[in-house]
Amino acid sequence: MCDNEDDLYRERLPNVCGSVGSKARSCCSIRTVHKYLPVTDWLPKYQWSFLPMDLVAGLTVGLTAVPQAIAYGAVANLPTAYGLYSAFMGGFVYIFLGTCKDITVGPTAIMATMVRPYVDGDPAYAVLLCFLSGCIIFVMGLLNLGVLMRFISVPVTTGFTMAAAISIATGQMCSLFGVSSSASGFLNSWIYFFGHLSQIRRNDAILGCCTLALLLLMRQVKDLPLPFKSVLKYISLSRNAVAVVIGILLCYLLKKDGVLPFLVSGTIQPGLPPFKPPPFHTEDPTTGAEISFGGMISAVGSGLASIPLLSILESIAVAKAFSKGKVLDASQEMIALGVSNILSSFFSSMPITGSFTRTAINNASGVKTPLGGAVTGAIVLMTLAFLTSTFAYIPKATLAAIIIAAMFFMVEYETIGEIWRAKKRDMLPFLVTVFACLFWTLEYGMVVGIVFNALFLLYKSMKPQFHMENEKYNGIELTVADIKGSVDYAAAEYLKLRIVSHVTNQKDTAAAPTLVVIKGHEIASIDTTVALNLKSLREDLALLQCDLVCWNWSIPAAGVICRMDRKLRSMFKFSKSFDDLMQIVADEAQESCASIAVELSQ
Amino acid sequence: MCDNEDDLYRERLPNVCGSVGSKARSCCSIRTVHKYLPVTDWLPKYQWSFLPMDLVAGLTVGLTAVPQAIAYGAVANLPTAYGLYSAFMGGFVYIFLGTCKDITVGPTAIMATMVRPYVDGDPAYAVLLCFLSGCIIFVMGLLNLGVLMRFISVPVTTGFTMAAAISIATGQMCSLFGVSSSASGFLNSWIYFFGHLSQIRRNDAILGCCTLALLLLMRQVKDLPLPFKSVLKYISLSRNAVAVVIGILLCYLLKKDGVLPFLVSGTIQPGLPPFKPPPFHTEDPTTGAEISFGGMISAVGSGLASIPLLSILESIAVAKAFSKGKVLDASQEMIALGVSNILSSFFSSMPITGSFTRTAINNASGVKTPLGGAVTGAIVLMTLAFLTSTFAYIPKATLAAIIIAAMFFMVEYETIGEIWRAKKRDMLPFLVTVFACLFWTLEYGMVVGIVFNALFLLYKSMKPQFHMENEKYNGIELTVADIKGSVDYAAAEYLKLRIVSHVTNQKDTAAAPTLVVIKGHEIASIDTTVALNLKSLREDLALLQCDLVCWNWSIPAAGVICRMDRKLRSMFKFSKSFDDLMQIVADEAQESCASIAVELSQ
Repeated sequence: MCDNEDDLYRERLPNVCGSVGSKARSCCSIRTVHKYLPVTDWLPKYQWSFLPMDLVAGLTVGLTAVPQAIAYGAVANLPTAYGLYSAFMGGFVYIFLGTCKDITVGPTAIMATMVRPYVDGDPAYAVLLCFLSGCIIFVMGLLNLGVLMRFISVPVTTGFTMAAAISIATGQMCSLFGVSSSASGFLNSWIYFFGHLSQIRRNDAILGCCTLALLLLMRQVKDLPLPFKSVLKYISLSRNAVAVVIGILLCYLLKKDGVLPFLVSGTIQPGLPPFKPPPFHTEDPTTGAEISFGGMISAVGSGLASIPLLSILESIAVAKAFSKGKVLDASQEMIALGVSNILSSFFSSMPITGSFTRTAINNASGVKTPLGGAVTGAIVLMTLAFLTSTFAYIPKATLAAIIIAAMFFMVEYETIGEIWRAKKRDMLPFLVTVFACLFWTLEYGMVVGIVFNALFLLYKSMKPQFHMENEKYNGIELTVADIKGSVDYAAAEYLKLRIVSHVTNQKDTAAAPTLVVIKGHEIASIDTTVALNLKSLREDLALLQCDLVCWNWSIPAAGVICRMDRKLRSMFKFSKSFDDLMQIVADEAQESCASIAVELSQ
Repeated sequence: MCDNEDDLYRERLPNVCGSVGSKARSCCSIRTVHKYLPVTDWLPKYQWSFLPMDLVAGLTVGLTAVPQAIAYGAVANLPTAYGLYSAFMGGFVYIFLGTCKDITVGPTAIMATMVRPYVDGDPAYAVLLCFLSGCIIFVMGLLNLGVLMRFISVPVTTGFTMAAAISIATGQMCSLFGVSSSASGFLNSWIYFFGHLSQIRRNDAILGCCTLALLLLMRQVKDLPLPFKSVLKYISLSRNAVAVVIGILLCYLLKKDGVLPFLVSGTIQPGLPPFKPPPFHTEDPTTGAEISFGGMISAVGSGLASIPLLSILESIAVAKAFSKGKVLDASQEMIALGVSNILSSFFSSMPITGSFTRTAINNASGVKTPLGGAVTGAIVLMTLAFLTSTFAYIPKATLAAIIIAAMFFMVEYETIGEIWRAKKRDMLPFLVTVFACLFWTLEYGMVVGIVFNALFLLYKSMKPQFHMENEKYNGIELTVADIKGSVDYAAAEYLKLRIVSHVTNQKDTAAAPTLVVIKGHEIASIDTTVALNLKSLREDLALLQCDLVCWNWSIPAAGVICRMDRKLRSMFKFSKSFDDLMQIVADEAQESCASIAVELSQ
């Protein structure tokens, strides 16, 4: 009885859609190849009818990808071309390794914001972070560590997304109104903005606000009861491109004597990025002194934890939202994301991840396979090759409006409502995350939220499922306690205290129990601390003239106690009915009386 | 149905033996007075026959308390008198506030070791730490925060105690052999010792080793089959005093031309400590510059967390061990400990707590009430008043032997065996704590152990009690899943993945289920993340041509989902038997067919 294994519910953690399991079964089978190279699965089934749909979708996404990439390059405090350098490789890699047809991998607002503090005037740090994050994500994917993401609850992700949207939008307020600012952080940005209202430039403010209004309107236009629905839909989907074209045209047409009417992002370095390994050393931009790899690592510091984490989080969140009805292979997604980052870093990219906006556009444009990503990538490359001089005219206010409009729809208003209605208590981790992200930093705010929510789990482990009542059986006063589920050390003292208090409180009354029966049929597991507390409970009850019997305990739980102290074996009784149990207890009492009588008579 | 409260098992955490509960019931009753001033409970029942027993016990404890106090003063790197200053007030306070007759509060090896790094040549820090720890412990006691101690499992405390014993004993090795050392830390002490073997003083080494052997022997002497058992017992209990007397006598008798044969602790400042408030500012011992309260606080830093924590831990552990058969009022113990520290700090004390060694001696000497503490306190005061010149002859090697002997018996060998036998997995937190304590520091080692063990709890929350099997009912293929206990966000994805994988894997087989039934009668609670995952599970299953029905869910769990999204109400079915459930499902399917037919015919 006492030599069995411990865990009743010994189901292994699911290896996120069976990856490890299937690998073990068939190391080199077709199925494994399909798993690690999903392109081998879908490409042979490709139909020519898919091609136009993939083309249109890739084109539509490209029209958003280019202005967003330029904008996010600026958000990351990098030369504008770096945004575009980050925006093409992800799509190409994802064709081969991705599992979800809709996802587009590239620079995002959150990634750009996270990278910004480490850039400090030198793109080398951004590129190194891209490479190292890629390596970390790739290894985590291979080790199936995506399961750790389960400790990030919906309230925490929702809170993080909301705080990120607010602080990113806040950071663009100055640009929207033509105020030059280097303030960062939620509070500082607002303080700076209101402290420099006098510097607002009329032209930029009008362009920015009108563009923002236009973007918000165009997003809704497809829902209006108008004719030409499908045309309207594509106009709505390519609204960012429309905004950019309008901005560039206005800037070009209103140019007077070589003076531009708006603040612009400045010239974009023309040409494709060179293929070269990521920089493992750099120079100090002010002193020109060489900074070694170690120096760069210590400079990026906590970014090596937060950027891979958020990259995975954002990408998996997008993948989950767009892979309805099939099991998401999170590990494979992480491998795809890791390789995307690694290869992208060879083209001077900053860290990239799955973009919610562009994935939604891809899906709405009717993409059929990941091939759409190649079209998007080609458009970005063509922009770099031929259109950089045109994009030199892109007003900052237009880019700010594009980012702010995207942030409007990043906030998951519906989910916040659902949290509020479902369980008020879950608003706490949500609010804690929001405030910590806004008033500390995004990365630490996320950690605060995760730790705060984990405290809920720990608190729960203090209170096992426990029920206790008094019973009377053939004139004997009994206390019957029922324990269920898994009982861990944090709950050990609770159980002991409850039972001892119960017996002590009734000690001098008529209902004083002389026997405590603990039902344990449904105990999943206990640990050493619980076992030791039960042992001391038995000793305490003995001093209170009260016996302790463990009735029908599950074998794993009883095993822990019996192995610990063989003398405690006698505490465990097994019987079908309660009557049988009482008979066993009565017989044993008689036996021990008889043996005492024999001893006394000798 | 959906507006009920969430927690099925809404039992409040026990307010450690009903303190808050009874307070609410009767704010100024006799019971409350007894609770907060336990002396009012036992003193009126005091019998004159108790007096000689309390006297003998107090005296026996005093004979150990004095040498231990002198030794621990040295361990804390304080002038020796400070050990004695710390050793009397606790006993007096405990008479009034303590709940457990055996406990003696005073300086301990662990407290002295913890304080040592903060002292740095200035006792002011130790006294301030005593005062502030006292305040923190007192407030924690009032707030009933002792429940947090439940997160320190037996493997972690056992590991900590063992590591503390080893590192304290290691720290005394040099003194035992007459080598002067200022090395601290486990590794450093051994390295220093073996690096300075040539400095071993013969006299000290012989005295030290013989004293150690004598102490270990005398501890066992009471178990030997010899006559005069009760005399032997008291000799055994006062073995520390015997060792000190022998050491002092040898030192005095072997003195030659004013040169002492052994290294001694040096003169102890004679006289009682002055009554004065703890120092809230001090002077830098080297520069003489004044250090403000803020400066002192930042110097003691993490000690403000670790010292109260360990003080509570040690005291409660001792109290638990010696309060068999009654419910320990942990909050009241913390209040007593806090007040002891606060008042003690007015007599230049270092932080104090319940001492395991002296409590055991107290118990073994047959103490009847906390009054014994007053006798012990009086002996310490008399030592300070009259015997300081005598104790100037106490050899360091004797003190080292006393400490090392105490450490031998502090290790809970039996518990380690119990952990090993009960559950091999629980050896992990034990070993992690031991190694972290030995190779980092005691305080951080403890934190590492606690956090490591808490990860076990978090890991458990990823795997709810879940069981799933296929069934066939009237030709319909079903999957019946059974979920029990409390299901939290970390488990949300696990459940969804398990069910979706199960349905997907059988999709194109004959056994492909068209209905998933989730039994939820025994679900204690769910949270928003779980609710959202169930909602998306339903959508995913719909895409797999499979219905989802939640059968007989507990009201709190069903409530969370229904409140979140009223449309999901239809998912929940309640029926006594499975047959009834299938009838309901079949009827609804027919109804929806009929309504579709009506719609089509219109």
